[in-house]
Amino acid sequence: MFGLIPKNENFFALFSGMSKIIVEGAKLLVEMLDNFSDAVAIQKKIKDIEHQGDSQTHETIKKLNRSFITPFDREDIYSLASGLDNIIDLIDASAQHIIMYKVDAPTSAAKELASIIFRACQNVDAAVSSLKHHSKIEEIAKYCVEVNSLENEGDNVCRGAISLLFQEEKDPIRLIKWKEIYETLEMAIDKCEDAVNILESVVVKNA
Amino acid sequence: MFGLIPKNENFFALFSGMSKIIVEGAKLLVEMLDNFSDAVAIQKKIKDIEHQGDSQTHETIKKLNRSFITPFDREDIYSLASGLDNIIDLIDASAQHIIMYKVDAPTSAAKELASIIFRACQNVDAAVSSLKHHSKIEEIAKYCVEVNSLENEGDNVCRGAISLLFQEEKDPIRLIKWKEIYETLEMAIDKCEDAVNILESVVVKNA
Amino acid sequence: MFGLIPKNENFFALFSGMSKIIVEGAKLLVEMLDNFSDAVAIQKKIKDIEHQGDSQTHETIKKLNRSFITPFDREDIYSLASGLDNIIDLIDASAQHIIMYKVDAPTSAAKELASIIFRACQNVDAAVSSLKHHSKIEEIAKYCVEVNSLENEGDNVCRGAISLLFQEEKDPIRLIKWKEIYETLEMAIDKCEDAVNILESVVVKNA
Repeated sequence: MFGLIPKNENFFALFSGMSKIIVEGAKLLVEMLDNFSDAVAIQKKIKDIEHQGDSQTHETIKKLNRSFITPFDREDIYSLASGLDNIIDLIDASAQHIIMYKVDAPTSAAKELASIIFRACQNVDAAVSSLKHHSKIEEIAKYCVEVNSLENEGDNVCRGAISLLFQEEKDPIRLIKWKEIYETLEMAIDKCEDAVNILESVVVKNA
Repeated sequence: MFGLIPKNENFFALFSGMSKIIVEGAKLLVEMLDNFSDAVAIQKKIKDIEHQGDSQTHETIKKLNRSFITPFDREDIYSLASGLDNIIDLIDASAQHIIMYKVDAPTSAAKELASIIFRACQNVDAAVSSLKHHSKIEEIAKYCVEVNSLENEGDNVCRGAISLLFQEEKDPIRLIKWKEIYETLEMAIDKCEDAVNILESVVVKNA
Repeated sequence: MFGLIPKNENFFALFSGMSKIIVEGAKLLVEMLDNFSDAVAIQKKIKDIEHQGDSQTHETIKKLNRSFITPFDREDIYSLASGLDNIIDLIDASAQHIIMYKVDAPTSAAKELASIIFRACQNVDAAVSSLKHHSKIEEIAKYCVEVNSLENEGDNVCRGAISLLFQEEKDPIRLIKWKEIYETLEMAIDKCEDAVNILESVVVKNA
């Protein structure tokens, strides 16, 4: 009869694999803006990472469908898997916009936002790990506060950059491009916040 | 005492009615772009369809409030009803934007997106029907994979069209209009994906 | 042993405090557009109100984490708290956009949307209060219908205003600014609808 019941830890391994993918994607986004002459090649790597994220998400859902016993509610596994997938999707979308819009050079605000995304993803990864180790609510709450404060910081940087854009950019098409790039970068940070909020509510429910 | 307990099948009938409305709306959207000289009249028909969708959704919620027994969780009926409503809302919004922005002629990308919406809606309808027939998770999962792949296709078409827009369109106001039309069409496909995901999670929970 | 179990009413008090904050923010937004020479000062007050909302939301979540017994599901308290927070966030974002984009004067459509937001927030507040008084589903449903109809009204005003913008505004950058202001105002009304929908589903579940 052993082996009939899938091991619960598998879900944690899948989530952990996913959060590592996210950190890797965020790291590449920072790199892409720092080495802008290699931007096209690095964007392709981010796209690959995003595909890996998709496979990981589908594997999680497939495993979920086959499992008799899950470490926490099926819906929560479901929403956590898609919450994590949303982050890498937005990192990928940001990189794509930058290439697609053929911008000349990254702005300092774009670099700053990428760095905030990276730090937020590191916190998401830490929060996912602490889930596995049956950590206390207080520990998850700490990562939530951290990501929440990064989200506020991102919000300010994004708002400041768009404000400047409206003051200085006279070409409306360039304005549209940069406004969207900033907003997509900021949305990636929002998705990190959503993910840690899902994590927090899962921990709250299972406390 | 008979008749005191509302028949569960009623919910399936309501959901099925709703998914038929969605397919009808998507079909009209395709027609609108194919017969653009009749666009104004067809958009009015889509608006009517959307109103029918609203009534259907409200009826579902009212029935929910009066029911002692439901075929699955109350919250799931709730989120499925609004998930389906979101699709027809976005089809309607797409049609409205096209009329409101007074575009000269539909582009091939717009037609392609409408056709993808139509196919995605047919899959949503099939998934809703299989819910009634107590189908297996694998069957719902198949429609999910199908809609997911249509969503990827839609994403590519939308991204390609917007990329072209930034390369060729010199009039910023026309660029804004078409960008928004493409994005609204793409969002309708996203809502189909959200709906089948809700369906899948309902089936997973009740497996 | 008395006092060990936190009083349930505290959650209702927190929600009620939050909905009062929302009404206050909406009232200031109306005032801001009516006394546009004081707009900068009033926007700062709205920002303060939004910070109060954040603290209130965090306090709710903290209390949730410490509570053994809650008046309804933990996840529902969670989603209601963030649903209410989203409203004040969008009111704040609207006010910020108006200042940030340095618009000359508020349009009548903007004033109309602010007035709709205010009325929607009053309904949210009434719905939150009726939650405390263990009201019937029918009463909450009434507020839902009301907010739903305000949302439709807001939709029409927003759509009309944007349509006019595309007809009359020749400066693309001004067009982008106003389009976004209208859309942000409209989104604040959407968030009111989301919040009463959460309320309704909570009541449905606990009926």
